[in-house]
Amino acid sequence: MNLKIAVLAGDGIGPEVILQAKKALYAISVAYDHEFIFEDALIGATAIEKTRSPLPEQTLNLCLNTDAVLFGAIGNPKYDNNPDAKIRPEQGLLRLRKELGLYANIRPIKPFKNLLDASPIKKEVIENVDFVIFRELTGGSYYGEKVINEEGTFASDICEYSENEINRITHQAFKAAQSRRKKVTLVDKANVLETSRLWRKIVKKIATQYPDVKLECQYIDNVAMQIITDPKQYDVILTENLFGDILSDEACAIMGSIGLMASASIGDKNALFEPIHGSYPQAKGKNIANPIASILSAAMLLQHFGLEKEAKKVYEAVEKAIEYKVVTIDLNPGSRFGTNDVGDFISNVI
Amino acid sequence: MNLKIAVLAGDGIGPEVILQAKKALYAISVAYDHEFIFEDALIGATAIEKTRSPLPEQTLNLCLNTDAVLFGAIGNPKYDNNPDAKIRPEQGLLRLRKELGLYANIRPIKPFKNLLDASPIKKEVIENVDFVIFRELTGGSYYGEKVINEEGTFASDICEYSENEINRITHQAFKAAQSRRKKVTLVDKANVLETSRLWRKIVKKIATQYPDVKLECQYIDNVAMQIITDPKQYDVILTENLFGDILSDEACAIMGSIGLMASASIGDKNALFEPIHGSYPQAKGKNIANPIASILSAAMLLQHFGLEKEAKKVYEAVEKAIEYKVVTIDLNPGSRFGTNDVGDFISNVI
Ligand SMILES: CC(C)[C@H](C(=O)O)[C@@H](O)C(=O)O
Ligand SMILES: CC(C)[C@H](C(=O)O)[C@@H](O)C(=O)O
Repeated sequence: MNLKIAVLAGDGIGPEVILQAKKALYAISVAYDHEFIFEDALIGATAIEKTRSPLPEQTLNLCLNTDAVLFGAIGNPKYDNNPDAKIRPEQGLLRLRKELGLYANIRPIKPFKNLLDASPIKKEVIENVDFVIFRELTGGSYYGEKVINEEGTFASDICEYSENEINRITHQAFKAAQSRRKKVTLVDKANVLETSRLWRKIVKKIATQYPDVKLECQYIDNVAMQIITDPKQYDVILTENLFGDILSDEACAIMGSIGLMASASIGDKNALFEPIHGSYPQAKGKNIANPIASILSAAMLLQHFGLEKEAKKVYEAVEKAIEYKVVTIDLNPGSRFGTNDVGDFISNVI
Repeated sequence: MNLKIAVLAGDGIGPEVILQAKKALYAISVAYDHEFIFEDALIGATAIEKTRSPLPEQTLNLCLNTDAVLFGAIGNPKYDNNPDAKIRPEQGLLRLRKELGLYANIRPIKPFKNLLDASPIKKEVIENVDFVIFRELTGGSYYGEKVINEEGTFASDICEYSENEINRITHQAFKAAQSRRKKVTLVDKANVLETSRLWRKIVKKIATQYPDVKLECQYIDNVAMQIITDPKQYDVILTENLFGDILSDEACAIMGSIGLMASASIGDKNALFEPIHGSYPQAKGKNIANPIASILSAAMLLQHFGLEKEAKKVYEAVEKAIEYKVVTIDLNPGSRFGTNDVGDFISNVI
């Protein structure tokens, strides 16, 4: 297969971990006789510094015209500590998601057998956990109108959802459930929010088209607890943008490290693959960042294009690295292996 | 001391658990020579059934003219499953909070020594955890304008905050931190939301008036993870309404049961005390609901009126019940003790 892949390494540890994902993809292309062409482009704080825009037009055009985007990380504390900054790195990612129409963010939670002890949660609670979060990614309060008055004494954010936005991701979630354990849990706050009531109404209607899938509705506050106390109950979690952001980071506690969590953001035409972790500026350039999330995002890319065997190969290579403890210090405090070593080991196993 | 206390038992298990809180308060009044006068009133689904209003005027007037409100639980699945219901039990609680001006919801998280094993989280992660959540309770998307179009194909919720709303709870949180470990963590999503940026700006300004208190700002997604992976870092968590709702339920995982979590909702004139758990309709009338959250809410009531000794007495009686395993089945699956037994034991120890 021929694939043209845009590589947006971004800020902080982004470039270091993305390099390892590229190595893994290169190893796959050699082993399975594919051709992957990578093209780098700027995004985030790095792009602001060079072009004054967090998403230069050149980057956007490239992404619109490639098969897939491999994304590193975004964010720089410099901007966080300046609430008046008008241009911020995150805007680049948010605009990119919107322009590419990446409405479904998919985040699988399945702890590695050899890492069950790395989680702060008890082994018996998390073993055999296997669920996936379908987070709506181009709507909600991320994109609704934002207001701040001139005196800086009042602000507002609107959370909006339309039927169409809810429809498309709901169908994705139900289809995924059909090839899994056939259960969808809709997470909302329908006892308070109007948008949640709209979600509930539409999702219930769609559910009747999937009689083999069971639908359950739970409140976000309850789920925030149950994901820790009883995570085995979940198969597919379907939710809006902000709730999905919160729950998927929370679910990292099950995996043992945020450095293990991959994600795919899918639209009707485009697809982007990125680790869940952020730019982790304190670790930048130190060769200590965990590249596994990035490498697993590359595996999700392969899977997206139907390259199941190849995706499995990457996953197994990651498992091997974990089994042999070729991991970074977040997973083994005394580890002598750095970002590069882990990446090399995995691509060699491939 | 003379106190007039409005008792709003509400729905589901509300009446059962509130009865135990009343017993405990009665025992305190006898032991310490106080006079507590209880007056019952309707709220929630129970009130809707009898008066068609989730918060009858009579109830509101009573609450406005008492020293404190003791609150049970609210909610009935009948209404959740009907997204078109115009009258819902939760509206009663939300309006009550607003009318009484209860802007600060305070939720302490401090696991019991004898219950460290009840949590799904490892003992070494949660022992010595001791933090308190200050949740803003009368603003944000709970109270902003809600829109649903006629065709039911579009909905929106506004999240709004003004300087004044942020000010008052921020001062409460910093004052609380001064008599604790002197650290406030502001939780927001300032990389996306305008309201979060307003919070950050105002809270940072106020922080300069409390030079002995350290302020840290963290994103909600990150905190949703850190509360599980490293909860010891927190002392006072300060946040807006919805984020506080999510985080405080999540923190129940640390306590081992949601049946242990008490809360106080404080305004400039009024105060309300309620367990965090909901109405748990499946358990209604079965004498299995855990009354401890309710009893600890009564302890927070005593503390609010400066009755420190008395509050401590209640807390110690609860500890004794836990030590002697006089607890409900949520804490000890084989327990032969019911709601009433636990309540009796605790008030006898007092
Ligand atoms: C960086 C930030 C804007 C982003 C989000 O909130 O979506 C991140 O937390 C994520 O989950 O991808
Ligand atoms: C019942 C519901 C409206 C309420 C809330 O969301 O505030 C509850 O979850 C709580 O935390 O007290």
